[in-house]
Amino acid sequence: MRIAVIEGDGIGPEVTRSAIEVLKMAASKYGLNIDIAYVEAGDNAIRKYGEALPSRYWPMIENAEAILKGPVGESAGDVVVKLRRGLDLYANIRPARNYPGIKAVRDGVDLVIVRENTEDVYVRAEYMLSNDTAVALRVITRRASERIARVALNMARTRRRRVTIVHKANVLTVSDGLFRSVVREVAREYPEVAINEMYIDAAVMDLVRRPQDFDIIVTTNLYGDILSDLAAYVTGSIGLAPSANVGDNKALFEPIHGAAFDIAGKGIANPTAMILSTAWMLRWYGEKTGNNNYVMAGNAIENAVINALSQGIHTPDLGGNYTTESFTAEVIKRI
Amino acid sequence: MRIAVIEGDGIGPEVTRSAIEVLKMAASKYGLNIDIAYVEAGDNAIRKYGEALPSRYWPMIENAEAILKGPVGESAGDVVVKLRRGLDLYANIRPARNYPGIKAVRDGVDLVIVRENTEDVYVRAEYMLSNDTAVALRVITRRASERIARVALNMARTRRRRVTIVHKANVLTVSDGLFRSVVREVAREYPEVAINEMYIDAAVMDLVRRPQDFDIIVTTNLYGDILSDLAAYVTGSIGLAPSANVGDNKALFEPIHGAAFDIAGKGIANPTAMILSTAWMLRWYGEKTGNNNYVMAGNAIENAVINALSQGIHTPDLGGNYTTESFTAEVIKRI
Ligand SMILES: CC(C)[C@H](C(=O)O)[C@@H](O)C(=O)O
Ligand SMILES: CC(C)[C@H](C(=O)O)[C@@H](O)C(=O)O
Repeated sequence: MRIAVIEGDGIGPEVTRSAIEVLKMAASKYGLNIDIAYVEAGDNAIRKYGEALPSRYWPMIENAEAILKGPVGESAGDVVVKLRRGLDLYANIRPARNYPGIKAVRDGVDLVIVRENTEDVYVRAEYMLSNDTAVALRVITRRASERIARVALNMARTRRRRVTIVHKANVLTVSDGLFRSVVREVAREYPEVAINEMYIDAAVMDLVRRPQDFDIIVTTNLYGDILSDLAAYVTGSIGLAPSANVGDNKALFEPIHGAAFDIAGKGIANPTAMILSTAWMLRWYGEKTGNNNYVMAGNAIENAVINALSQGIHTPDLGGNYTTESFTAEVIKRI
Repeated sequence: MRIAVIEGDGIGPEVTRSAIEVLKMAASKYGLNIDIAYVEAGDNAIRKYGEALPSRYWPMIENAEAILKGPVGESAGDVVVKLRRGLDLYANIRPARNYPGIKAVRDGVDLVIVRENTEDVYVRAEYMLSNDTAVALRVITRRASERIARVALNMARTRRRRVTIVHKANVLTVSDGLFRSVVREVAREYPEVAINEMYIDAAVMDLVRRPQDFDIIVTTNLYGDILSDLAAYVTGSIGLAPSANVGDNKALFEPIHGAAFDIAGKGIANPTAMILSTAWMLRWYGEKTGNNNYVMAGNAIENAVINALSQGIHTPDLGGNYTTESFTAEVIKRI
């Protein structure tokens, strides 16, 4: 398996190093063949090369079967949005669920946000019409709405069979109206899945009030961004939540959290989200290629993390005193 | 004082009736001269006149000094967005704070969301470029950003002197970049106010994690919409939160909550947000005209509501068994 690794900024290099250690351990145990190429991208790359995603690295990214990405700083928009759109990684999958041993605002939550990942205001078509007036385009297409609907509906089939469409069609009658109606159209092919819908302002509130009621949320790009940090926090901590950006052939895995510059370099960053992103990457690759060793390795990593967390092995963000290194060692021990 | 009253849909007529009773009581006690004109608008108006905001009522709205508006149903966008933009009510002020006797997700919160109320995607310039592609314009201007910045900064001066700019300038570099830089420019005239900024996804999370740290949040229209339902819930209930839409001469007062069709007509709706909106309207009018009787009447209503709530006089949404009517009677008793 050919992986491109972006360490990122702030705590990025620390949590990436931790995840790669775990990956190597699992690879040797399960006989995986992992080939890693490091790609410099982010704030540091700007300083060094003048570009957030230096073009010299693009061939390595194209050659990779999956990308593992740490958090990026100020220039995150120029790295991750470019990768998502450039590689057509159209489905951003963001699960939120409780972990044993982790205090949360709400318990008993198991939901997945399925976020359209290529359009909305993320097309970044913005213009100054004059010195005083800025315009940004928000683009919604039938094609992108349709394929994200299928991702959500297929996933719902394997879960609790509920899909909530989140939109703001009372204001964005045309664009969110299109998104809503396309999802509803596709949903007719899935009569076993119950569909409901909610305005984004109400959804944000209900994500705190009664998150247990959600199974799958399908939504446009910006609403998905806003919902997913909140969902991660409500179920425990943003330090735990992995995510996948999936296209038809390639995928990029990354934590939801940011670069946390305030604690960078101190050796106390929580690598959980990055390790779980790595586990997910292996599982995804195993399922795609039919190589079950990758699936087993991914599951082993995930179980090791959950086991460590449930036994109170916590970094300082969760109130514990494990360092990035000692937490990683505990995970590796359990694989 | 000439008021246009929109009863709205769902629980709208019930909570409006309650608020008008309270208003009449306060008016007679404080010698206010209130002249009420009822304006039909919303889903019922569409059924009756084919328009959500029938043009026959526009002269009454223009003639009014303030508008008191209940929640509107499906057609809310066509009523309230039209009023906000049509009357240039550019500042949407949404306080969120705890009330004594009301259980909340977080305590000790006292923040105000100052939401730009005339632009962003609320300009509702949306087009189908083809059968399959929708485009919506997001407009941000220097003028609107500047005047909302002044509202926020002036308010901060009278409070804890902190303003948080909420935006997504890592993606919307041009439009949110303009908003952010204009607010920062205006803030130079207010050296006593501390300014910080936050991405909308992080802000939504922090509104649950540590809402006590916010004083004033200034933001564009859609983010303000998303933040305010959540802030109301976190500090107690969306059933309690009033809001003001303020322009240079006129203002519209309304609850943040929606039409709650599921409990409409049952006589159990919580009229608190509508009553507090009414109190705010009187205070606003008194301050504007220098007539202190209105300010006193507004304060008396607010104190009566807070007193009732703190004594456990609660409607079913708060776990009590007061009806809309009996709750209203308790408030009136306390004026
Ligand atoms: C860094 C930023 C561009 C990104 C986004 O808005 O998508 C991030 O918030 C995320 O959710 O992955
Ligand atoms: C009903 C809707 C158009 C409105 C808005 O989005 O502004 C509402 O959610 C609000 O916050 O007042």
